[in-house]
Amino acid sequence: MRILFLGDIVGRSGREGVLRHLPALLKDLALDFVIANGENAAGGFGITEKIAAEFFAAGVDCITTGNHVWDQRELVSQIDRMPNLLRPINYPEGTPGRGFAVLPSKDRRRKVLVMNAMARVFMDPLDDPFAAVERVLRVHRMGPGGVDAAVLDFHGEATSEKMIMGHVLDGRVSLVVGTHSHVPTADLQILNGGTAYQTDAGMCGDYDSVIGMKKDAAIHKLVRRLPGERFTPAENDATVTVCGLFVETDDRTGLAARVEPLRLGGRLKPAMPSAAA
Amino acid sequence: MRILFLGDIVGRSGREGVLRHLPALLKDLALDFVIANGENAAGGFGITEKIAAEFFAAGVDCITTGNHVWDQRELVSQIDRMPNLLRPINYPEGTPGRGFAVLPSKDRRRKVLVMNAMARVFMDPLDDPFAAVERVLRVHRMGPGGVDAAVLDFHGEATSEKMIMGHVLDGRVSLVVGTHSHVPTADLQILNGGTAYQTDAGMCGDYDSVIGMKKDAAIHKLVRRLPGERFTPAENDATVTVCGLFVETDDRTGLAARVEPLRLGGRLKPAMPSAAA
Amino acid sequence: MRILFLGDIVGRSGREGVLRHLPALLKDLALDFVIANGENAAGGFGITEKIAAEFFAAGVDCITTGNHVWDQRELVSQIDRMPNLLRPINYPEGTPGRGFAVLPSKDRRRKVLVMNAMARVFMDPLDDPFAAVERVLRVHRMGPGGVDAAVLDFHGEATSEKMIMGHVLDGRVSLVVGTHSHVPTADLQILNGGTAYQTDAGMCGDYDSVIGMKKDAAIHKLVRRLPGERFTPAENDATVTVCGLFVETDDRTGLAARVEPLRLGGRLKPAMPSAAA
Amino acid sequence: MRILFLGDIVGRSGREGVLRHLPALLKDLALDFVIANGENAAGGFGITEKIAAEFFAAGVDCITTGNHVWDQRELVSQIDRMPNLLRPINYPEGTPGRGFAVLPSKDRRRKVLVMNAMARVFMDPLDDPFAAVERVLRVHRMGPGGVDAAVLDFHGEATSEKMIMGHVLDGRVSLVVGTHSHVPTADLQILNGGTAYQTDAGMCGDYDSVIGMKKDAAIHKLVRRLPGERFTPAENDATVTVCGLFVETDDRTGLAARVEPLRLGGRLKPAMPSAAA
Ligand SMILES: [Fe+2]
Ligand SMILES: [Fe+2]
Ligand SMILES: [Fe+2]
Ligand SMILES: [Fe+2]
Ligand SMILES: [Fe+2]
Ligand SMILES: [Fe+2]
Ligand SMILES: [Fe+2]
Ligand SMILES: [Fe+2]
Repeated sequence: MRILFLGDIVGRSGREGVLRHLPALLKDLALDFVIANGENAAGGFGITEKIAAEFFAAGVDCITTGNHVWDQRELVSQIDRMPNLLRPINYPEGTPGRGFAVLPSKDRRRKVLVMNAMARVFMDPLDDPFAAVERVLRVHRMGPGGVDAAVLDFHGEATSEKMIMGHVLDGRVSLVVGTHSHVPTADLQILNGGTAYQTDAGMCGDYDSVIGMKKDAAIHKLVRRLPGERFTPAENDATVTVCGLFVETDDRTGLAARVEPLRLGGRLKPAMPSAAA
Repeated sequence: MRILFLGDIVGRSGREGVLRHLPALLKDLALDFVIANGENAAGGFGITEKIAAEFFAAGVDCITTGNHVWDQRELVSQIDRMPNLLRPINYPEGTPGRGFAVLPSKDRRRKVLVMNAMARVFMDPLDDPFAAVERVLRVHRMGPGGVDAAVLDFHGEATSEKMIMGHVLDGRVSLVVGTHSHVPTADLQILNGGTAYQTDAGMCGDYDSVIGMKKDAAIHKLVRRLPGERFTPAENDATVTVCGLFVETDDRTGLAARVEPLRLGGRLKPAMPSAAA
Repeated sequence: MRILFLGDIVGRSGREGVLRHLPALLKDLALDFVIANGENAAGGFGITEKIAAEFFAAGVDCITTGNHVWDQRELVSQIDRMPNLLRPINYPEGTPGRGFAVLPSKDRRRKVLVMNAMARVFMDPLDDPFAAVERVLRVHRMGPGGVDAAVLDFHGEATSEKMIMGHVLDGRVSLVVGTHSHVPTADLQILNGGTAYQTDAGMCGDYDSVIGMKKDAAIHKLVRRLPGERFTPAENDATVTVCGLFVETDDRTGLAARVEPLRLGGRLKPAMPSAAA
Repeated sequence: MRILFLGDIVGRSGREGVLRHLPALLKDLALDFVIANGENAAGGFGITEKIAAEFFAAGVDCITTGNHVWDQRELVSQIDRMPNLLRPINYPEGTPGRGFAVLPSKDRRRKVLVMNAMARVFMDPLDDPFAAVERVLRVHRMGPGGVDAAVLDFHGEATSEKMIMGHVLDGRVSLVVGTHSHVPTADLQILNGGTAYQTDAGMCGDYDSVIGMKKDAAIHKLVRRLPGERFTPAENDATVTVCGLFVETDDRTGLAARVEPLRLGGRLKPAMPSAAA
């Protein structure tokens, strides 16, 4: 199966970057499934039902999130009617929404397990993401009789914790990919057991910024330590890079057969997966 | 000037990877100056005078460090006689060693200012790195009459804080490069004002690991939350990648004219700077 | 029921302070049950089976712990045979030991539920302590037909999180008491629903110290930020204070009828519960 | 000299509690100087010029603050005309306001040095509070020819860091008192060198709350991890306790001769300093 994963989409410029590139990507890469992290899609903070609908209409099959999931509060009451939008699985029991879903591929013939979990080092105190993911995998195994591919968006800060998750799941899922740092890492690889891994997918947003937000307000707050303007997304379309990765899985095992970084537009070194293996 | 920067060198396998590749790099890239972060060179924890001497003999001109600088305690009494080995500048007044140095290029005709500072978000409480760097730059300006190039190794966790430092120094130094995450980022670029920037240079070490350390002990500690074996470096030479970046500066201004990632060996996507512009 | 709770016992001087005062306290206060936090009893770091045995022999009925529980590694293999020594309940599933126990009062006629949980703000990432405690209370209710008293040692840093736990359990347990800060708080009170509450019981140890440890090493590390001597307990018996609290519960409801602070010896303002209500 | 220190005043109920008790305290204790931490006086968040003026009119001689100092943004432009209102000294250079002041006693015949610093463990990254305080003390020594008394409000989270400050300044100031935790500690004492010390003065506010704020919103946020109502102060006058301490200094040395806790009203165990030594 041919899967595209896109990192945290930030603000209007990030959304438009994704929507502009997606049609060609769907066709050129013959994508079977598209996942995108949408936690910063609405003005940098959270996501709304309307924005999610735009992504789904454009060909995104599943939206993941992270610590910013509830920044647009109305999502709390909307999320239960959005089966393709995930919130981190390790929020307390009783939290609206769900942390994983088994969804059909575009040809409707295969099933993809998508999981979304939050790391804990330097992040909010949540339940054990390792245990939460194990519980899902006990029910939804990858391979014959189970799901055809499995992806975990592990939203976190510390590189060590993300790598540990990669190794713990190695051989049991197609892809473990980190989000949240808003910077793509250059460590995309296939681990020993066949699982694709990247510490962070990077953001879809303006890289002439501070993690997608306008520079001045961020500098003012961190360097001067004084109250200042609200943070708003940087929105120069010329410096927007759409960042993510492409993984082609083996349909018999679900494991990664090929993995390639994606970086389109803006100032980062371009990377476009090749259409054919 | 042609400058090579190498990220955190981890353990024996990281050291040997660097020493193996450096001779060819020095020649092929006609390097004028080499900086390497050595905070994890001694068994993953700190650095010794002996190890530093090996790097200097191999062509490293300046070693930077970070939060692990004092892991080998004897360095506290040795560092004052090692003018080319820096510790983060924002340690308390009276800390042995120094946080910046003006050092000659290999041809002895040009001067390079190297600064080493520690970020604070999710890190130890230290003095303001922004103010510390400003004080140095007030004395050692880059450009005619001042230094010919200036590099800051900004050792930190949060991508936002590193980007802020890049923008704050943009136009005034040749390069702001992050270390500490042990994962290379794919955001190497030249900022608006002419300063090269990369959120993290990545490590020189075994990437089939948890940030360079053996997997089992790290998994045991983080996932099971029980005491376990000491952390030791992963040392499979076949999966060691030497990570860093190459920046060519304009000799009139000191600003970056060309910047390219470096990733040699192991499992990460290879990247070798081209010899000629 | 008449219950004594003692805060973190630190090192030899803390242990001896407790052992010296306990005989008279047992008699004068006609205690039915004694709980002590022992996470720092062994040289300031953890506890051993032998030390625990001394406390049990002296009249302690249950020992609680905290983040230092595994500092003496042999406890990992010993704890399963020590039914009266608890580790925080919210460690990962599969962790040796247990996080709560229902234990007999000294007269063997009543049952006390003791729970030990770890807070998460500024602490290690563990599972939700609120959910963990709720699961216990669903099975072991306090009152007729259930346990006669219930106590939670909530080991944590942030005063806000501890207060929240107090209010969440108010009316359902006899006592919520914090540990870990090593400083007694002066906010002992009975909450609206009848639960006794104190943000921190304080330590049983030398208060001419830094949270029970020798001053010089602590100052060196925090102020100078250099490696130094190992931390060892301050052990001046003249400045040891035994800190805790006394709660008398209503035998029909298990709720707190009377609560009084205990501070014996050393330099803190003395406080001795009165024998009779 | 007879000095009263009051901990963080929270919201309307905290302000009114202080204003109600202060007239009698001034008279009964024959106070020479009054300090109060006002960082939460304005609706729980920050302080305004108007509120500060009320405190000054009621007999407060100096207001200290902490991490909430700028919550009411207009203070940024007002603070420079308020010589008796301090912000933590270790904010970046160029921050409006000042972190210490030498102020006259009520009889105008003696001088009191008041310092306000912020701790760093589990707090915002600021400059070294130990170094900052040393710089002040190098200029303003206590004793003959210098100031008659010296007080540090050390606003911080970790008990260890506060104790370290106490010991570091022991013998050189009259009082080191912590604020920020909003819970009074029962460890008020005179250290070996003659400096009075208390880990936290506690708040002046409603103790039937979560650190002075309404319970429901705090529980919702921490336990359920969902967005909820804004935090607002708990304002039941019946459960407001005014918390602080009284220190009588030796006029020849400035050191503490007598120290007593103060807790008035509400549900905490009452403590009223005796008028005469
Ligand atoms: Fe995030
Ligand atoms: Fe994000
Ligand atoms: Fe580091
Ligand atoms: Fe490192
Ligand atoms: Fe403790
Ligand atoms: Fe503890
Ligand atoms: Fe505060
Ligand atoms: Fe406060």
